[in-house]
Amino acid sequence: MEIKLKENERIDDLEYKGLKIIQNKNGFCFGIDSVLLSDFAKEIRNNSKVLDLGTGTGILCILLSAKTKLQKIYGIDVQEEVVEMAKRSVILNNLEEKIEIIHKNIKELGEIFEKNSFDSIVSNPPYKKSNTGKTNEKENKFISRHEVTATLEDFIKISFDLLKDKGSFYMVHRPERLAEIIFTLKKYKLEPKTIRFVHSTYEEEPKLVLIKSVKNAKEFLKVEKPLIVYNEKGEYTEEILKIYNKNI
Amino acid sequence: MEIKLKENERIDDLEYKGLKIIQNKNGFCFGIDSVLLSDFAKEIRNNSKVLDLGTGTGILCILLSAKTKLQKIYGIDVQEEVVEMAKRSVILNNLEEKIEIIHKNIKELGEIFEKNSFDSIVSNPPYKKSNTGKTNEKENKFISRHEVTATLEDFIKISFDLLKDKGSFYMVHRPERLAEIIFTLKKYKLEPKTIRFVHSTYEEEPKLVLIKSVKNAKEFLKVEKPLIVYNEKGEYTEEILKIYNKNI
Repeated sequence: MEIKLKENERIDDLEYKGLKIIQNKNGFCFGIDSVLLSDFAKEIRNNSKVLDLGTGTGILCILLSAKTKLQKIYGIDVQEEVVEMAKRSVILNNLEEKIEIIHKNIKELGEIFEKNSFDSIVSNPPYKKSNTGKTNEKENKFISRHEVTATLEDFIKISFDLLKDKGSFYMVHRPERLAEIIFTLKKYKLEPKTIRFVHSTYEEEPKLVLIKSVKNAKEFLKVEKPLIVYNEKGEYTEEILKIYNKNI
Repeated sequence: MEIKLKENERIDDLEYKGLKIIQNKNGFCFGIDSVLLSDFAKEIRNNSKVLDLGTGTGILCILLSAKTKLQKIYGIDVQEEVVEMAKRSVILNNLEEKIEIIHKNIKELGEIFEKNSFDSIVSNPPYKKSNTGKTNEKENKFISRHEVTATLEDFIKISFDLLKDKGSFYMVHRPERLAEIIFTLKKYKLEPKTIRFVHSTYEEEPKLVLIKSVKNAKEFLKVEKPLIVYNEKGEYTEEILKIYNKNI
């Protein structure tokens, strides 16, 4: 099927099982965050019903459909323009049976989904509070990066509501907000179970943190070894190469 | 002055500014945890009034007296036998003006100290809950390792009560309890500000975590680069060597 591109859009090759994605070069393009989160969440069980909160280009839905044997994944985004583009990416990959992209504010998901009905939820939410950053950014980029339409607490609260008992919630975020994230997860009975920090090199502070929490689980946190992106020669580490190319 | 040793006691050289410490070879001997915490907390300001909760052998009081220009540090422990030994270590080092060791359950410190009166508090508390571990351990070792006489929440609550506004609380603990620690710190308005994980090698999960929190501070967490103990040859890393020998 031929997919029409709009102005400033391009098709990028994901270099993984022939998958492609449409992105707008003036919009928010997916980054290493989503790729690492899809790898971190690839333990999602067969036949799972999964939700992606703030799907953007749809990258997480597309990668997880290929990396796991999930049954169905719903990608939610508040931005109409982005949702329409993500829908075309789903068609481009012939993944209409596995992925459904929905235009909705995540705070209103109680209207369309039953409580306690999802096996797993994934999210690459906006990293910054709404009162920070340049306000002259293009609106859709600003919404992707900042908590304009929903806060961290909204993402966590709706995840608790929609997850089954012992369902898992996977998130990528910035380390500087980890204390707030852990506090809010625990407040909503999403117990943090696994954390992994992502560093550019061994010699640097982490730039990202991957967090898995489980609804109503017991306290016991596993902090994994650091995930390092570049080796001493400035090349991708073996682990990153695996995640990008060979990982299933 | 000559210091008398009891049965099973020995004097260990701290290899730092001529400091020594008395330890009981059948009791809980200080480990790398205390040394790393003393280094992590060495930014304690000049003329500070400091408290060490669960001082044990008194190791943190002795190291911090040498590494900082604190005015006075009070070391608290619930175990009478250990307190008496720590007092002799203070005398052995001629630090009676800087260090006072007090026999008390930390939960009762409100009886002897004023609220909001300390600049900094340090603690290497018991790592394990009271319902875990071998119960046939010798009682004093068991109390040093397990939350028998005070829980993590007790340590945090009394720290909030006794710290001045913007006073700092430094703790070392196990990563597996980090979610609980962060949640409880935030519950008592001790905002986590700096976290550093300690790994045996780059290739391993962290064994310890160092946490600095500040009373009534704003949210913003700095996760520092990993502190690695051994290099690829199995030798101490340069940073550990500095902390053990040259660090002031």
